Amino acid sequence: MFSKVLVANRGEIAVRIIRSLRELGIKSVAIYSTADRESLHVQLADEAVCVGTAKPQDSYLNMQNILAAAVGTGAQAIHPGFGFLSENAEFAEMCAECGITFIGPHAKTIDLMGNKEHAREQMKKSGVPVIPGSDGYIRDNATAEKVAQKIGYPVLLKAVAGGGGKGIRRVDKPGQMARAFNEAQSEARLSFNDDRMYLEKIMENVKHIEVQVFRDRFGNAVYFPERDCSLQRNKQKVLEESPCALVTPDQRRELGQLALKAVNAIDYLNTGTLEFLMDHDHHFYFMEMNTRIQVEHTVTEMVTGIDLVKAQLRVAAGEKLPFTQDDVKLNGVAIECRINAEDPAHHFMPSTGKVNYLYLPVGNLGMRIDTALYPGTTVTPFYDSMIAKVIAHGHTRQEAIQKLKRLLNEMVIMGIHTNQNFHLAILNDPHFISGHFTTAYLEDEFLPRWRGGQPNNEAV
Amino acid sequence: MFSKVLVANRGEIAVRIIRSLRELGIKSVAIYSTADRESLHVQLADEAVCVGTAKPQDSYLNMQNILAAAVGTGAQAIHPGFGFLSENAEFAEMCAECGITFIGPHAKTIDLMGNKEHAREQMKKSGVPVIPGSDGYIRDNATAEKVAQKIGYPVLLKAVAGGGGKGIRRVDKPGQMARAFNEAQSEARLSFNDDRMYLEKIMENVKHIEVQVFRDRFGNAVYFPERDCSLQRNKQKVLEESPCALVTPDQRRELGQLALKAVNAIDYLNTGTLEFLMDHDHHFYFMEMNTRIQVEHTVTEMVTGIDLVKAQLRVAAGEKLPFTQDDVKLNGVAIECRINAEDPAHHFMPSTGKVNYLYLPVGNLGMRIDTALYPGTTVTPFYDSMIAKVIAHGHTRQEAIQKLKRLLNEMVIMGIHTNQNFHLAILNDPHFISGHFTTAYLEDEFLPRWRGGQPNNEAV
Repeated sequence: MFSKVLVANRGEIAVRIIRSLRELGIKSVAIYSTADRESLHVQLADEAVCVGTAKPQDSYLNMQNILAAAVGTGAQAIHPGFGFLSENAEFAEMCAECGITFIGPHAKTIDLMGNKEHAREQMKKSGVPVIPGSDGYIRDNATAEKVAQKIGYPVLLKAVAGGGGKGIRRVDKPGQMARAFNEAQSEARLSFNDDRMYLEKIMENVKHIEVQVFRDRFGNAVYFPERDCSLQRNKQKVLEESPCALVTPDQRRELGQLALKAVNAIDYLNTGTLEFLMDHDHHFYFMEMNTRIQVEHTVTEMVTGIDLVKAQLRVAAGEKLPFTQDDVKLNGVAIECRINAEDPAHHFMPSTGKVNYLYLPVGNLGMRIDTALYPGTTVTPFYDSMIAKVIAHGHTRQEAIQKLKRLLNEMVIMGIHTNQNFHLAILNDPHFISGHFTTAYLEDEFLPRWRGGQPNNEAV
Repeated sequence: MFSKVLVANRGEIAVRIIRSLRELGIKSVAIYSTADRESLHVQLADEAVCVGTAKPQDSYLNMQNILAAAVGTGAQAIHPGFGFLSENAEFAEMCAECGITFIGPHAKTIDLMGNKEHAREQMKKSGVPVIPGSDGYIRDNATAEKVAQKIGYPVLLKAVAGGGGKGIRRVDKPGQMARAFNEAQSEARLSFNDDRMYLEKIMENVKHIEVQVFRDRFGNAVYFPERDCSLQRNKQKVLEESPCALVTPDQRRELGQLALKAVNAIDYLNTGTLEFLMDHDHHFYFMEMNTRIQVEHTVTEMVTGIDLVKAQLRVAAGEKLPFTQDDVKLNGVAIECRINAEDPAHHFMPSTGKVNYLYLPVGNLGMRIDTALYPGTTVTPFYDSMIAKVIAHGHTRQEAIQKLKRLLNEMVIMGIHTNQNFHLAILNDPHFISGHFTTAYLEDEFLPRWRGGQPNNEAV
């Protein structure tokens, strides 16, 4: 096992990783930007190195400085957390060149799964169903119409080299195709100097269901019970739970087997998550893979009792996966609310300032709050607005919801705005309680009602 | 189920009970003394009634006022917590007369087990081994000598009506008996107007092992994995764990069966704990029974995932025990440190004052801090000095210890002295880590060394 690990991240995930390092008796090295001098992760780590100014490019994305910090402090490995450099194949490669273990999959795997088209092809090869679409590139609008007719409208035309919303068009019916294709293609040509196009079905009335997997260098692979991350706003997850209230044990096994097939085919190392869409008939379609630990890994930890970061460290150090599939027992239900520094009453505008009073309710069974907040923390505008994750575990989904409501009612964060009451409104919403919400529910149905000051608008 | 319950207690246990009430959707009524106006339990409850001045006799022991508060607020039941009125048969009786459910066993059971001599006789009748001693009363020193010879020295002479250390003598060898007997007997006569004496073997090199049980009105009874509460100072538990590191699964079952035999014989209702001494050969000897929830129930909750207070409420409301013996699965190890407002460096003098800074580490798996502290709380001199319980759960005892050390190193309580560093020294002590400590260890071996500034004296 490593004796010293550098944590290339900040905020609650850095704190969470440092805590697991401490429990394993491994020394921790924090990195920080000048804006984060007084951050909790800096205070908790055994050593801390300033790697640049507030701007992420200068500090948390500054690969040279981070590697220099690792070499300078004698860290044998780097845990990238999520975001920042966690899915950067070049960084993983640079780590390897410096003789430092990147805690995650091989650089080539990150590269493969980071390219959505390649990932999709790879999954099809492994027999994992993907969202219906064109096989490879589409050369003209006639072909596009033929494919769309076959898979059914609405469809999304996408530039292979796409990004930033360029070269993308939604097409709802055949008559719109010719114009959309020509527009998107010329936009792609202008923007990326690459006018290759492909096409995907737009899935509606679906849930976002994901499966976390773990695999060691000996080929031992394990899947975890699925998570339902359908509650999203602006493509950001708001509340996650495990298991999904609608997935049956048989479907759970089926999904798990799909995920294992996928990771075995690519000789995957360490942990990662396959994201699927689940349609009304409970068919699963691969969307993408995250080749890192995720924000919502906490709910999986709560329902299985397994510390996933400790397992990441062991597997990265070359040890065997510390559990088998039989050891992964689904126990109860866990739900996580992402607490953001933002003002739901004013278009969820990010909120910054000094947390001058903080009360985190900590007692009783089945609760957990992952946060880098302490009384006196300053929330700056430089980074992600997520400041805490409030997680509750219950024997039933109802108990977990009750517990979360209790926690959110007790928690006090003064000095900044948060979405705490917005979460309480969700937890009191009958459609959320029913479990039958889809990815569109929060934005299309709940939010307009909530904004309109319907009864659900009241924090309970 | 009840719709409103009064919590006849204060501090962390009142907060803990109110939280479970909230999670069950039951309204809570707090009671408080004038010294506790701003206490957390008052703030968290749905209603709060002042029942008297700071002195416990005037408030938390004021049966009339508490019952009046229950009647006045329409509470259907009273949860007494621990301490105060929790083992007061008269109060349980008064509750029944007012048509209010006392959450605990029947008054007659409290009465039976509250009398140590009767409890001992009852256990012997049920086939539960008790600490060797005289059968009934001893009339003269010749009989005392005969009994002592039979059970072996050292022995403890005790006045039946004893209390406050009066009428008690330790006798190490035959020559000391006559004088000790006469002294103790005349002291008892003067103090209690009752000179009946009995005698018990002093058990040395023993562990304090206890078994919590649960029984409903339908006769369903369940035992929980044992707790090791051997680390004590001044007869007060300091650190508790479950399970005991030295008890084997067979012995666990044996002990559980003994406990069930005992509670079935007395038609026990709700939860309670049988305390045993375990000698070097792992023989168990009944000491006494606590007919209430205990401080250290938290470690049992952590290793079983069962909320014992919720179960108390269900059973008190007439429901069936919500779990069977098969549902009680021992999972890992949990350890609790009692954090007291006291100064270990100055003879553990109680410490009072305003908590002007508080940081409670709350993230990651397997931790829990039960406390009524919040930033700005004032710790007054009127009540017990225990202000928090820090509990960690691990897959192994080693992991639980590592986690506790991590928690205690992170926790910050400013404005008062606490025994936080004393606990850290215990957690780093090789003999504690070995698990082979007895009830005498902390006072006789650890403390003198710690006071002497041995390496263990340093907080880590």
